Parts: sequence; structure tokens; C-alpha cells
Amino acid sequence: MKWTENIYPIKELATGETLNLKTYTLCGEKPGPHIHIQASVHGAELQGNAVILQLMELLNTTKISGSITFIPLANPYATNNKHGTYTYGRYNPVTGHNWNRNYIDIIKETNFDFKKFLTKHQGQSWEKIKKAFKQELENLFEEYIQGLMNKKTLSENNKLNLLLQQLSAKSDGILDLHTGPVATRYLYAAEYEKEVAYFLKFKHILLIPNEFGGAMDEAAFMPWINLFKALEKAKIECPKDIESFTLEFGSEETFCMQSASKDVESIINYLKYKGVLAGTPDQIDCHYCLLKDYKTIYSPKGGLVDYHFAPGDRFFKGDNLASFYNLKNIDPLAPISSSRSTIVAQEDGIIINRCPSSSVHQGMELYQVMTKLHEHSGVQ
Amino acid sequence: MKWTENIYPIKELATGETLNLKTYTLCGEKPGPHIHIQASVHGAELQGNAVILQLMELLNTTKISGSITFIPLANPYATNNKHGTYTYGRYNPVTGHNWNRNYIDIIKETNFDFKKFLTKHQGQSWEKIKKAFKQELENLFEEYIQGLMNKKTLSENNKLNLLLQQLSAKSDGILDLHTGPVATRYLYAAEYEKEVAYFLKFKHILLIPNEFGGAMDEAAFMPWINLFKALEKAKIECPKDIESFTLEFGSEETFCMQSASKDVESIINYLKYKGVLAGTPDQIDCHYCLLKDYKTIYSPKGGLVDYHFAPGDRFFKGDNLASFYNLKNIDPLAPISSSRSTIVAQEDGIIINRCPSSSVHQGMELYQVMTKLHEHSGVQ
Amino acid sequence: MKWTENIYPIKELATGETLNLKTYTLCGEKPGPHIHIQASVHGAELQGNAVILQLMELLNTTKISGSITFIPLANPYATNNKHGTYTYGRYNPVTGHNWNRNYIDIIKETNFDFKKFLTKHQGQSWEKIKKAFKQELENLFEEYIQGLMNKKTLSENNKLNLLLQQLSAKSDGILDLHTGPVATRYLYAAEYEKEVAYFLKFKHILLIPNEFGGAMDEAAFMPWINLFKALEKAKIECPKDIESFTLEFGSEETFCMQSASKDVESIINYLKYKGVLAGTPDQIDCHYCLLKDYKTIYSPKGGLVDYHFAPGDRFFKGDNLASFYNLKNIDPLAPISSSRSTIVAQEDGIIINRCPSSSVHQGMELYQVMTKLHEHSGVQ
Amino acid sequence: MKWTENIYPIKELATGETLNLKTYTLCGEKPGPHIHIQASVHGAELQGNAVILQLMELLNTTKISGSITFIPLANPYATNNKHGTYTYGRYNPVTGHNWNRNYIDIIKETNFDFKKFLTKHQGQSWEKIKKAFKQELENLFEEYIQGLMNKKTLSENNKLNLLLQQLSAKSDGILDLHTGPVATRYLYAAEYEKEVAYFLKFKHILLIPNEFGGAMDEAAFMPWINLFKALEKAKIECPKDIESFTLEFGSEETFCMQSASKDVESIINYLKYKGVLAGTPDQIDCHYCLLKDYKTIYSPKGGLVDYHFAPGDRFFKGDNLASFYNLKNIDPLAPISSSRSTIVAQEDGIIINRCPSSSVHQGMELYQVMTKLHEHSGVQ
Repeated sequence: MKWTENIYPIKELATGETLNLKTYTLCGEKPGPHIHIQASVHGAELQGNAVILQLMELLNTTKISGSITFIPLANPYATNNKHGTYTYGRYNPVTGHNWNRNYIDIIKETNFDFKKFLTKHQGQSWEKIKKAFKQELENLFEEYIQGLMNKKTLSENNKLNLLLQQLSAKSDGILDLHTGPVATRYLYAAEYEKEVAYFLKFKHILLIPNEFGGAMDEAAFMPWINLFKALEKAKIECPKDIESFTLEFGSEETFCMQSASKDVESIINYLKYKGVLAGTPDQIDCHYCLLKDYKTIYSPKGGLVDYHFAPGDRFFKGDNLASFYNLKNIDPLAPISSSRSTIVAQEDGIIINRCPSSSVHQGMELYQVMTKLHEHSGVQ
Repeated sequence: MKWTENIYPIKELATGETLNLKTYTLCGEKPGPHIHIQASVHGAELQGNAVILQLMELLNTTKISGSITFIPLANPYATNNKHGTYTYGRYNPVTGHNWNRNYIDIIKETNFDFKKFLTKHQGQSWEKIKKAFKQELENLFEEYIQGLMNKKTLSENNKLNLLLQQLSAKSDGILDLHTGPVATRYLYAAEYEKEVAYFLKFKHILLIPNEFGGAMDEAAFMPWINLFKALEKAKIECPKDIESFTLEFGSEETFCMQSASKDVESIINYLKYKGVLAGTPDQIDCHYCLLKDYKTIYSPKGGLVDYHFAPGDRFFKGDNLASFYNLKNIDPLAPISSSRSTIVAQEDGIIINRCPSSSVHQGMELYQVMTKLHEHSGVQ
Repeated sequence: MKWTENIYPIKELATGETLNLKTYTLCGEKPGPHIHIQASVHGAELQGNAVILQLMELLNTTKISGSITFIPLANPYATNNKHGTYTYGRYNPVTGHNWNRNYIDIIKETNFDFKKFLTKHQGQSWEKIKKAFKQELENLFEEYIQGLMNKKTLSENNKLNLLLQQLSAKSDGILDLHTGPVATRYLYAAEYEKEVAYFLKFKHILLIPNEFGGAMDEAAFMPWINLFKALEKAKIECPKDIESFTLEFGSEETFCMQSASKDVESIINYLKYKGVLAGTPDQIDCHYCLLKDYKTIYSPKGGLVDYHFAPGDRFFKGDNLASFYNLKNIDPLAPISSSRSTIVAQEDGIIINRCPSSSVHQGMELYQVMTKLHEHSGVQ
Repeated sequence: MKWTENIYPIKELATGETLNLKTYTLCGEKPGPHIHIQASVHGAELQGNAVILQLMELLNTTKISGSITFIPLANPYATNNKHGTYTYGRYNPVTGHNWNRNYIDIIKETNFDFKKFLTKHQGQSWEKIKKAFKQELENLFEEYIQGLMNKKTLSENNKLNLLLQQLSAKSDGILDLHTGPVATRYLYAAEYEKEVAYFLKFKHILLIPNEFGGAMDEAAFMPWINLFKALEKAKIECPKDIESFTLEFGSEETFCMQSASKDVESIINYLKYKGVLAGTPDQIDCHYCLLKDYKTIYSPKGGLVDYHFAPGDRFFKGDNLASFYNLKNIDPLAPISSSRSTIVAQEDGIIINRCPSSSVHQGMELYQVMTKLHEHSGVQ
């Protein structure tokens, strides 16, 4: 068991200081999968770092097969960016880009030739193909980044995102630790990895298509989705044993070691499932919702909002989800009823995220909710 | 009983729209004091508006002596100013000025002549002197504002603050409704009004000197402090029955009508004390802290913070108030202990405010705490 | 000749005020095309409003055929959004979205059935088909917006952008007035409208594909591109006489009526070309650059930048475009040379945009430049 | 001649990186005064750094008496703070504090005992008294900072400002390099140092009282002002040969080495005056304005502004300084005149600063102007 540390410069600031990523890698004595765990790509989403600390602590008292790389504070520029006491960490303050929509579909960008790749590795075992493909991925990123640098077209967004993709290229499991604004704990999982998702022991699972939309989890699984398709086309069977998840650990701006000691169980269980840790993984009762049934409720008016439901709460069609108060329209003879309007649930669901402010302009996101839930029993 | 509404334009925006203050005034049938209640001078501090709504509602079912003016959303420009989902409402985004440090000491600015005033009103009753002084104050603001306008030197800060001062000039009680960042409920009271402060039924009272520091409460009481001094010098006794308080109703970005139905009791009790509402006011057990014993604990390092105490919590010398984690300095063999440092309480106290983010740079405010508490019994 | 004004509420603010769009439409006595002109969708890009004022002024002294709609300050929320003295007007401060990437491809979104449409209008003249298609577009927006409202899924971005699309649905010419950061005057034109673009008399033309990327100009021409394709497939000829352009009038944060009196000539000439104004349009010598040859030069380092070229300047391969100074790396014995690095042009070109700050982090945009210019002679 | 470099950590960021000040000190072989030169305490004010580079370069080819310390980029946190492409560098983004109003009057804060000091150094030469007082100042800062650290009350503002004061405590000349927003070049000088100010060769001089207002120049001269008074009271004569100036080198966000090669002449001439450089200093024709005659013109309305005067321009009573356009109030039959209002100069003056945006809310600063100029001839 051995820890290795690496430092990667990611942004030289105007004043000459350099912000770095620091990675901590633990290699077990026995072979096994490689797991990549990063936190805080959105700068205000801190809890994943507490989870990483708890997991690193625990790994010093056990043995692993394979290896794990940790990248806490994966976007220091975003975490350090304060407007008032809050962290403006979701978007690049200079370009407006969402830091988790800047990844690339390397296969598509480089027009990777699967036919040639499969021909080259014809008849080989899945383990060998997998290893070769990981190497291809790493090379693709190496070349791609170098190409942008040569052309002076490596932007401040791309650099960080491409580095994270490159560092995770050889992984069998990629865990991107996020949080919501004011949020419950929930998991993003792609449809192809649904059965594995249950081992992450989240109560709420958001099932997304096996498609690319710019996020890390998608960027990590897309090459494999494409490889699986190519293999299927070539009628070669394979176990689809590479996963990529986004884990949402509650609310932003929050760092709590006590909660982390419970949050970490999700990852420990997954590591057991992957064989990195010894032991039998289990599952809990949970439910999933398809992306198309994950709804954002936008504010139909401007005003001060009294939220009647908290993240994690279940609600039913007809429930009053929130009351709005327009304080420029008070009839003083009936001040409350005259200034108030309400938002009524159109269908049953569960609150997942909530806007962190009670002061909202028309059209802002109030809630994100899961509807049309599919139940899954943890007893197997 | 009659409601009157008034609209005051306070800022024409670049695009030509105008932001307004709207005041709602209730006049009782019997004479009595005038009370001025405003909320949200700091744009993200919303709960006072819920309290105002609850109080307006209640006043429609009772009778008052005297009159009350309500100004909800007293600073719409600040409330509307979003950076991300949060409201950048404490400072003017253009000038950096704290919206509650821009008021003026009108007596000092205009060099008001108390000698002349007292000579003119020699031998009159306190009620008459009081009425005359209120009129003087209103005139002073009228002239002062007009003077700035004539010289084109009315800045965007001054206009709002001066208007609020002018509107409150004839009041016997001025209640400025605020909140902290993440905070408990507490009250700012000046030393001269300590005995009245107990009737606002806050558990935590911060006792400030009878001096000017730029805030609304101070700006409202300073003319009276000066009048009291002038009267004392002239050996005329008077009851000092004009008060001005800042009421802190919990945390910013929060608007909760249910909590407000309890918060409003503070003001109802004060209105009973003032004779605006019928009934006998009561008190609760509470404590006060002198301003010099109200301490800000600044972050001695940068890092992610795990806050171990919540606003309202009592702590003792030697307690670990918060743990800091520097994730660039992790020793992977002892990840938690190597990255952690702690903040230890130097003396006993109560947490009043807490920074709303767990991501802090060195030197940021972590906590504001009351120390050296003076207990007061509510049983009289 | 008659002016009509309309007001469209677009955002109710948290404090209850409503921001509106105001449109000014001039109808000529003779029939003719409809032209839609809007400015300031990016909040800090002001010069288009000066151009609109100049054009409105001029139209009171002449006669037009057809009609023109003006929308000055098309995004008041963005124009009013100050951080410091500057306007944070390019991105929605709450969602990070670029205000000019939020438009929709209505044909694609609604899966419009061209086959059905062409069958219905078989054998009709182009004028009739055009009129019918405009009506279809207006209906599509009407239904689309209503659908989002019914589902409470009309976000703050969508509302503004969809309204602008709806208002422009029946236009024959759409002019979206923008500026760059620190910029020269230049024009975005689609390939299909290249020959018309010359009549806008810009010296620098950026030729973009006939494709959708989220901007207003694209959103406006995409339905017509699709109709043209459908007609071509059906072997029906038509003149492609609907255009949509983005006009870039210099630098942001600038409003200059004197420059506007010259800027307006671009539009006057286009109105002559369209037959809205009487007179013969002319052209000037100009050049165009394909989008693929429009290059962004990103900062390879962080530092203080001394820009050696201004927008509008021509540069040649090997020129020193900018010098960087890293003031943490000064060798005091050779302070300038030790702290300086340079950016050398990789090919010939013209500076179009420049970053407005000399303080840049690694990866920020320094310049946008046109390369591989195609010359066009204004003499016909 | 020897250069010394020192690094001072000033802020550990949330992610663990530390921002540092780096000082470069040149010691001449012959004794002489010590000069302290710092730039960019306001983060967007960059030109002083170019001036420093030019001066450092030049000093390598000449000889000095005494010593000079340079602190380029004296506030890296502020310089690195981007909102959009602009730098939010004037105010601490977390606390709203103006970075150049956070200095302290160390004499007042520590209640320094001049009587005791003068008794101790009775009968000594001015050179000896001066040296002793510098040492006292340095000790005062050392103790003061240590005291705050012990009480955990060293805020993020204080730390930087106190360090800069401490580093400059032993200086005979303190030059604080700033810029305005959009500005001409001008100098802040205190009344007591007026005759020396002419040697800085600025055309526009703003003469401020010998009083404290929180800025660096004042913080640097106040201890000496107090010493001069104490000496005067004790009837001891002394030459008042310690100066402190704020030099305003044009506009923010700008870094231009070519302009700096001219800007540096101000400082070179001052160094000659001080005897640090050899040669005879000269003067230019210039004028000064008293602080009370330095006027800010606030925007009387909201709107788009067409500025008719540039920094450095002279204007006369009755001149139209700027036109405002309210685009929500256009009468389309007279679009320009109906939407326009103007700002007319109330007296003669010179434009010094201008707001960098043409989009202004009511009450924002439009211009800062010098009035009632006092001319000074450079020929002696």
C-alpha cells in the first residue's frame, strides 16, 4: 500500500501565482480496478472534500486491490471566487460557462476509428481490450491538449476540464462529487449502469440517457458507450464494467465531517462492489426517476417566497409548494391574501433541489423535483 | 382607523424604469405615538417583511392609538441585485458602501442650534417641545436634501438613506428590521433605552453606546440624544420617550410566515408598551452584552470550515468552535489530523452570527459572539 | 406614416416592479417589407441604441415603404446589472447563460412539417408562400410559449428570447445591434446572404454557416433556411429575400451620438436595398472571413498585458501582438526582459476584438482576429 | 548597489494557496533617504506597475544614494478578482471595504506619547530624532499587528493594509501609485508638502488637508504631521522633509509600457529632489485645486450617457457636460429631443475622472472635476 502525490498547475493568475491541482493516489498490493474520485468542480460544492478525507482516513486502516486517485478541490479558482460571503462557483466568472458543461466527447472530437481499434485487438480478452482502450484514451487527450496548446487556443475553461478528463482516462470507476444548491442527497446514473447504481445506496437516483451533454460523468462514460456499441456491432460480448456517476451530497457552501462519515458509506459500498475493498456490498430501498420526468419549477412571478417543502420531502398533486408575496401590491385591508399567490403541484413528486434564496425574480428556478418514481427494493 | 399609501421614487434605472418605496400608514382614531417600521435596507434580509405582513394583518382586527408607518422592501435596488442565486444586498454594488452605514447625523451636519431652539420653547411642556423638535427635524431633512439636489451632489446612496431618515423624522419609535448572515434573533439597543429594550422580548440584546456610527437606529436617536443633553444642561427634565432599535430576525435570504407569526410578538409587545396597542406588555428572561464585548472571530487561516456551533449556542472557554481543513496540505497517511487546525474559544460566550459559507479565506469573519453577558430577569 | 408603441412586460422583479420592453413601429403608407431592429440584448452593448435614435429621427423626415419595428434596450435586466461601475450584461447573473445563445430553432423544436405546408400552398406565388410562412412562425411561437407557461417551465432566459423571436417572426430583415468588448465595427452574415451583406457597408464581415448556434441572427434565419431547402427539394425557385444580421458597432459601455450618425448609414443603405427607403444603395471595399478562420487568441500565461495592436489594426505573421509581464518573477537586474514574454502572430490577420482589461489570467481571451481574408470591391 | 528581495505571505486562500507580496529593495552605496513605492492597492489600477518596471530598469544603469523599495501588485487578491472580464478591484468583494480606506492612524490608535518621546530625544539633531521616530513607528506596527493576531481579530482587510504601513514605516518618501476609472494623470498632495509636490511634475494637483481619512498617503504622513506639531509646540524647528503622495497614472485596466516611460519622469524628478538620484530637479506649469473644490457630479437621472468631455478637458460654466437618454420615454415624432436631458456645468473646471460606463443609474458618479484652480508656474 503506497500513496503517491502529484501536482498539476492549472491556472497562472494575473498576479503570477499559480493554482494547482493536487492528486493523492493509493496503490494496493494486489491488482484491481482504478477508481477516480474528484470533488468541487463547482466551487461552492464542498461536502465531497469531507467525504474524500473520511475515505482517505479509512483506507489507511484497510487493504485495497487496485488503486484510487483522489482530487479534492478540483477547481480552486472557482472555490476561491467570492462575491460577498458566498462563492460564485458554478460558472466561470469571466466567461459564464458552467464548469460542469465544458467537458468534451473525445471520441467525437477526434473522430476515433473503432473499426481499426477492434481489428487491431481482434480475438483478445475483454481485459486486454479494456487496457488497450484506456491507453488509447490517454493518448487521445495528450494529443488533443497538445494540439490546442500549439494553436494557442487552450482556453481557461478547457484546460481544467481536459486535465480532469485526461487524469481519469484509465479509470474503471469515476465518481464526481457535487452538491445541489439547497438539496437532498441524490445520484446521477446513466441507464446502462442502473444496476450498479443501486450499490451507491442513494435513496434518490436520477437516470440519465447514455448520451453526452457536457458533464464529467457523461464525458467519462461516452467513450465506453461507444466502445460497447462497436463491440455489439461486431457481435463481441463484454461486461460493461466501467461506470461513471455524479454523487450529490446535499447543499452547497456546507462542509460537515460528521455527515461525511455517513456519506462515505456510499463510496465504500461501491468499492466493495468493484472489488477494491473486501466485503459484500448491499443495497437500500430507493427509487429512480427518468431525466424526462425530472422537472424544474420556474417562478411564475417575482416576489418573496415562502417555501413550504424541503429537499427530500414528498409532495402530492394539488399541494401548495410555495407562496409568493408581492409587496408592491399589498391591499392594507387584507395584506396577506392580497399580496400572496401560490404554486400548486401539478403532479406527485419529491423535492430534490430548492433555490437558496427567498427573493426571486420571475423565471428563476424554485425547485427541481423528481416525478413518476420507479421503486427499487434493497432486499435482494 | 384608516390606511394611507404613498409612493416615493428612489432610483431611476439606466433603462428608464423607476424603483419606488411604497409606504403604508395606519392612523388610529385616538391620538398617540407614531411608530416607523422598515425592512430590508440590506437587500437579502427578508424576514422583516414577513413580520410586517403579519402585523398589518393583525392591525385590521384591533384598534390603535396614534399611527404606524410600514416600509417593506425599503431598498429594492439591493433586493433585486443577484450574483448567482444569492442576493448581493449588503453593499451598494457600484460604490461598495454598506447600505446601513450611509445615514447622517443631521444635527452635526446642519450644526443645529439647540440654544436657540430651547429659548424659543422655554417653559413649554415636553409634549410641545417634542412636537416642535420633530417639526424641526423634518425641516432640516427637507432643506438638506434640497441643498444636495441643487448642487447635483445627491449620490445614489444618500438619496435612499436621507429619504428614510426624513420619513421617520416625526416618529416616537423607529424599528429597523434586519437579519444576520446565518444568525439567531437579537436586538441592537442603545444604552439610554435599555429598560425599554426589555419590552421587545429578544433573548439576546446588544447594547451600543449613545453614539453615531452611520446606522439607521443611531441616525434616528442621535438628534434626541443631543436634545436630551441640551435639556439636561438647561436643567429641564424629560422622559426620554423616543426609541430606535435594530431588530435582527434570524438569517438572510429567508422569508417564513410561520416564524413571522412568532417574531411579530416582539413588536406587538413594544406597541403595548408605547400605548399604541391596548394591553400590558411583559418581558422575558434575557441577557445583554456591551458592544465592546461583542467579538468578531476572524479566520486565522484559509480553508474549508466545519462549524461546530450554531447561532444561539452557548460555548465555553476552551471549546473547539470550528475546524479548518487545508486540502493542499494533506498527509495521506493521516489525512484528517494533518490537514486540520482548530479555533478554540478564548472565553465563554454565545454565538450570534456565523459566516454562511464553509469556504473561507484567511481573515474572513467566522463568527460574531457575545461575551461577558449581563442577565436580566423577565419576572418583574 | 404612423408610429405605434407597444409595451411587453418581460420580468417581474423580486420587489414587485416589472421590467418592460417597449417597441416603436413605423408604418409607411405604401406596402413593403417589415424590418425588425433591436439593440442591447447584451446589456453593456449600448451603441445600437444611439443608432436607433438617429434612425428614428431621420425617418420623421422621409417616407418609407413597409414598416420598421425598433426595440431599444431589449434586455433591461442585463443593462441594469452593475458590478462595480461596469455592467455585467453578457451572461444572466443567476444562470450564467449567454443572453445571445438562448434563442431556439423553432422549426426543430416544434418539428414543423414542411411537406404539409408546401402541399397546402402548392402553386402559390413566393409572396403568398412567404406571408403564409410568417403567419405559421408567429403561431408556432404563440403556441410554444403558451405550452411552457402551462407547464410552469418558462425560465427567465427563455421568456425574453422567445418574445424577441416572436416579435420578429414576420420580418423580412432582422438587425440585431451588438458591440464587441473593445472592438472595431464588423458584421456577422450568413453564407446565403453574403451578397446582401455588402450593402450594410461594414469593412469587416464575418461569414458564418447557415446553421443554428443559439444566436438571434441564426434563430431568425433558420426557419427560412429550412424553407429554402424544402422548396429546393420540391424544385420550386424562390429569391431568398429574408435576411438576418448581427451588426457590431464598436466597443461596449459606449454610447456616442456623433459616431451613431455615421453608424446609421449602414442601416439606411440596407433599407434602400430592401426598398424601404427610396434611393440606390451602394457598397464599399470590404473583406470577409469564414467563421473557421476567425480565431480567438487565448492568454498562454497569467500577467499584466501590454496590447500592441488595436481593433481594426492589420498584423502580419511574426508580429508581437502583446507583451505579458509576470511581476512575481522579476529579476531586478533585468526587470523588463526577465518578467516579459510575448505573443507572436502565427499568421496574417486583422484585430477585431480585444479584452478590455490588461490584467488577465491564463486562458482568458486576449484577441479575436480575422485571418485568411477575402477581399470584395465596393465598385460594381 | 544591491537588490534584495523579500516575500510576505498576505492571504491564505480557501483552497490552501497563499498570495504573497514580493518586495524589491535597492540599496545605494552612499547613505540617503529611503523611498517606498507601491502599486495596485486597488486591483484594477495597473499602470503603476509599468512605471515601477521602467524605474527599476533605469536604476540598473545609474547610482543612487539611500535606498528604494518597490512593491508591484500590492494587492494580488484584488487584482485577481474578476467579474466578467473586468477586475472588481476597488472594494473587498467580501466586506465591501474600499482597499484604500482601511489604513489606520497608528499614532491615534496607540495613543503615542510625544511628550515622552521628545523628552527622551531632547537636544538631538533632526536626523537623530527622525531616525528614532522611524524606529518607534516600526515598533508600533509590530506590536499592534501582534496584538490583533493574539486576539484573533486580524481581519482580511487589516492584514494587508497594516503590512504595507509597517513596510513603509521607515521611509522618507512614500509614493502610492493609483489610477482613476477613466482618468487623466493627477496627484494627491497634502497641504504641508505643496512645495515639494511641484517636483512630481503633474499638471493637476489635488491639495488635501493634513488630516486622516483612511488612505495610504494620509496614514503615512499623519505620524509626521503629529511629530511636526509636537515639535512646534516644543519650539523645536525641523525641515518637514518626509512626504507621502498618491500618484494617479491615468485609467484603470490599462498597462502601457510606452506611456510608463514618460510617467516615470515624475518619480525620477522627485528622486532628484530627494537626492536619491543625482541631478537638478525641475518643475512644470501646473495648477492645484483644494479638496473642497474637487466636485463629484452625480447623475441626476438614470439613462444612457453621451459624455461630451474627456478627462483632462477644461470646461466652462454653462457647457453641456453630458447628455442623458431615457429610452423608455421616446416620443417617436421627436425621438432625440424627447428622450434627452443634459447636464450643464455650474462653474468652470477641469474633468479629472469619468465613469467608465455609458449606462448609469440615477445617483451614480459621472465626473469628478477640479474647480477654482490655483495656477503655479514651472519657471523658477
